[in-house]
Amino acid sequence: MRQVRIGFIGVGNVARALAQLLIEKRAALTEEYGVEAVLCGVGTRRWGFRTVTAGFGVEGLLATPEKLADAPEAASLDVWLGQTGPEVIFEMSSLNPQDGEPALSYVRAALQAGAHVITANKGPVAYGYGELSALAREKGREFLFEATCIAGAPFFSLFRETRPLCRLTEVRAIVNVTANLVLTAMEEGMTFEDGVKKTQEMGLAETDPSNDVDGWDAAVKISIVSQVLMGGRLLPGEVERRGIRGVTRAEMRAAKERGEVIRLVARAVRRGNGTVEASVAPAKLKASDTLTGAGVDGLIAECITDTMPPFAVVARNITPVSTAYDVLADFVHILRR
Amino acid sequence: MRQVRIGFIGVGNVARALAQLLIEKRAALTEEYGVEAVLCGVGTRRWGFRTVTAGFGVEGLLATPEKLADAPEAASLDVWLGQTGPEVIFEMSSLNPQDGEPALSYVRAALQAGAHVITANKGPVAYGYGELSALAREKGREFLFEATCIAGAPFFSLFRETRPLCRLTEVRAIVNVTANLVLTAMEEGMTFEDGVKKTQEMGLAETDPSNDVDGWDAAVKISIVSQVLMGGRLLPGEVERRGIRGVTRAEMRAAKERGEVIRLVARAVRRGNGTVEASVAPAKLKASDTLTGAGVDGLIAECITDTMPPFAVVARNITPVSTAYDVLADFVHILRR
Repeated sequence: MRQVRIGFIGVGNVARALAQLLIEKRAALTEEYGVEAVLCGVGTRRWGFRTVTAGFGVEGLLATPEKLADAPEAASLDVWLGQTGPEVIFEMSSLNPQDGEPALSYVRAALQAGAHVITANKGPVAYGYGELSALAREKGREFLFEATCIAGAPFFSLFRETRPLCRLTEVRAIVNVTANLVLTAMEEGMTFEDGVKKTQEMGLAETDPSNDVDGWDAAVKISIVSQVLMGGRLLPGEVERRGIRGVTRAEMRAAKERGEVIRLVARAVRRGNGTVEASVAPAKLKASDTLTGAGVDGLIAECITDTMPPFAVVARNITPVSTAYDVLADFVHILRR
Repeated sequence: MRQVRIGFIGVGNVARALAQLLIEKRAALTEEYGVEAVLCGVGTRRWGFRTVTAGFGVEGLLATPEKLADAPEAASLDVWLGQTGPEVIFEMSSLNPQDGEPALSYVRAALQAGAHVITANKGPVAYGYGELSALAREKGREFLFEATCIAGAPFFSLFRETRPLCRLTEVRAIVNVTANLVLTAMEEGMTFEDGVKKTQEMGLAETDPSNDVDGWDAAVKISIVSQVLMGGRLLPGEVERRGIRGVTRAEMRAAKERGEVIRLVARAVRRGNGTVEASVAPAKLKASDTLTGAGVDGLIAECITDTMPPFAVVARNITPVSTAYDVLADFVHILRR
């Protein structure tokens, strides 16, 4: 059995869900891949970069995170990477939608230090995909981010592993659950403000919901899709973006009477000259539209290629486990190499 | 560049669509995988098993199939396999839903002869999965069948490549387009008989539609899913089966008034004792049900696992290209080994 040294950056909901999955799947990882994952370091905004003993483990992260205060703190990220020598870094810090920092620098440093990097954070991918994937290739390491766009369903790995020889020409997607939930509340007759309040009470909208309802989150995601799968060079700020604040209850009612729904739809299209155009905007969907399969709690991406009829992937009931499992799937991809 | 000898069994719509794809993707196969596929033999019900020259090619199959009559005919399948020495056999003969023959014997013989086998035919998988996959393992060859259940979207490869460490506990799926179309016609007010007639006129129901409307096709597919992904030993005849003949227009109308649709749903569930129960039956679906994402022309499978929230794959506008592309994807999987 081979020990694989892993490091966590970020200890929020996704990191805790991943810790739990690593415990639940420990026997299967050993049995199927001959591997034991050993936590060697943890980086958090609160505690800095800490070196932990094998005895602490992902169990310690779940049960006694406060003990990180007693673990040796490294003077810097680079020192921490050198001291802990991780084979795989799980980057799960929170998103800064403006420039992807500091996560972008974390990923760069980890790849430079010779680790594979798996991120659940959209920032480094949206703002650094070209640079970081080139760096990973140069170092002979993986830079993986399955969880970033359609958490809980395969998307990037699906294209990489199962749809060879085809060229993605267009994507239509629902990538933001919060906007979905607010629109659904408005379908039931609520105002936009009450819809936001209800979604906040469900724990599914942030105190400042603008990242979701103004389409920033969706713009970051469609920027990633256009860069990774369509060869576009389109930063989040270059995505044409209209959020759901302008959607009226009268529009929602009218749509409902026609058997339609209004959803925040992200779209990217490859143009003839090799560029990619992307947009985020509310759109009316007929009942027969593939995108309605996302329901109220789901994410969906419909993919149009040059080779075969359209297909789609759907994830329902998105939770931190959806994201954490995608991170785990990326980890197994590395183990299979 | 390496030449890969391939053989076709069956020259129907799917085989022709595959021939077309092999022409369109010839340059990409060479560039990305260093391979040229060379057609060495063709087996058809009409012409028997023929050895063809490299000059005939998949182009010949499309342009001048009648020239097969001039190609040397082998005395038997085994002789043909010996003479042509294919590295990969594409088995695309038509389905016999009763016992999977003669395709089952074709696949067995090809594996015995040392070829990889890709089939688009449900018969050999439903009736021979256990035996044929064991034989393939013993011979160090692949037995692949991505196209058989959800043509045009990744399904078996999705689990194999992108969803490791999870156990499929339940599948709900719409796997038959013909039944979908007949039910849609009934939603618009037609009788069952007129719905069948309309679907036949579209070229999407057979003269005898019973295989589709009585749920046989769906039963064969859910039998395959239960055997391949859920460890069940459930032949098509053991699937609890009710077709759509009994669905009345009054039921369709009542569903529509509630914003629901009625669809033929195939389902498989893993029971505690390790067995799998599977059924095919008309079911009412709420507008928020993931399965509605299949629309009228699509296939969908919703997957429930022990590890993460549900996800689904959808294929829309199913054509012979959907099936042929899945066969091509299986071929690339072999080339990547």
